[in-house]
Amino acid sequence: MEQKSDRKVPVPTVRRLPRYLHLLKRCQANGRESISATDIANRLELESIQVRKDISYTGIVGKPRVGYAVDELVGAIEDFLGWSSRTNAVLIGVGSLGSALLGYSGFQKHGLDIVAAFDNKEEKIGMDVHGIPIYNTNELEQRLETLEATIAILTLPAAVAQEVTDKIVKAGVKGIWNFSPIKISAPDDVIVQYEDLSAGLAVLSIKLGHK
Amino acid sequence: MEQKSDRKVPVPTVRRLPRYLHLLKRCQANGRESISATDIANRLELESIQVRKDISYTGIVGKPRVGYAVDELVGAIEDFLGWSSRTNAVLIGVGSLGSALLGYSGFQKHGLDIVAAFDNKEEKIGMDVHGIPIYNTNELEQRLETLEATIAILTLPAAVAQEVTDKIVKAGVKGIWNFSPIKISAPDDVIVQYEDLSAGLAVLSIKLGHK
Repeated sequence: MEQKSDRKVPVPTVRRLPRYLHLLKRCQANGRESISATDIANRLELESIQVRKDISYTGIVGKPRVGYAVDELVGAIEDFLGWSSRTNAVLIGVGSLGSALLGYSGFQKHGLDIVAAFDNKEEKIGMDVHGIPIYNTNELEQRLETLEATIAILTLPAAVAQEVTDKIVKAGVKGIWNFSPIKISAPDDVIVQYEDLSAGLAVLSIKLGHK
Repeated sequence: MEQKSDRKVPVPTVRRLPRYLHLLKRCQANGRESISATDIANRLELESIQVRKDISYTGIVGKPRVGYAVDELVGAIEDFLGWSSRTNAVLIGVGSLGSALLGYSGFQKHGLDIVAAFDNKEEKIGMDVHGIPIYNTNELEQRLETLEATIAILTLPAAVAQEVTDKIVKAGVKGIWNFSPIKISAPDDVIVQYEDLSAGLAVLSIKLGHK
């Protein structure tokens, strides 16, 4: 068997793994114990060869005529994605998108605990949103020392995104999930993942023929 | 000059257009009147040939030594994406992600007005979230007649996503932005765009080496 650590995982595979996980958890909820690659493929409109290949990265191989043991595969995908352990995150920029994300419980299911939020608006500081306290952005470095947060979610206006990035990188943040509509520069050992909700809306809009 | 309508626009191009738009709007805010493809490329860490090609789909061509007129390009991208006109949308499923999206003002900037939300939980019906009324899901077909909504945002549990899809398709919805973690079937003339926030988190997690 190949060692999973020897293989670089393609990004499209990584992006599909959460979809397998969603489906498998529904199977668990229904008491189903095993599922074939073909069944997964049919339900998600993928090719079964693709499903088998994606899943092989987690180190799990299906059994002929039985498929995958659902519980085992859930565990393997969660382990593989690091979602079976907890990671602390902070969110910076409590505007409309930031507040929205603070209210979204989905991240917790994936091992991500947002432990604090930061903003520079007087009226927001000291409040909490869905139980998450909002601190002053100028306390970022000091607070990050004790929060043990390795991930920062940036939902900031473009104008201040780089300045804040420089601060949090210095304070030891290793991963940045950037929802701000701007490219940011960070050292090579810091991972930056961009997210742009308007990209999906653009594709939908174009396909709907609004042009 | 090529006619934009004669060319099929690649999805990656469409996904990049909102990023150009974000940048151009910052230029407008700073009173800047023109920008070159090279400058856009540098700021977004893209290749300038890519930028020129993407922008050419909107029908706009830059001038040598001047570049693009910022105002003109903003208008062209917004027209191209259909974001200069308004589209009504409904959101179905006011759980944590649904509530979050109702609180996100970013869609309005892109011409999308969420005019109503639907849920089947007694305690939510009749409430409003950020000024958007929540109706009973069993009134979907009836309400959709008067709401003139062509887009539905689905933030539903997987178990009911298909049933609701069938209803809204019958009621004339032409585009579905599906945040539910499940594939849905719809007629060919209905556009379905999938969005999975956990996919981005998976990529970040893997890159951070949690495995």
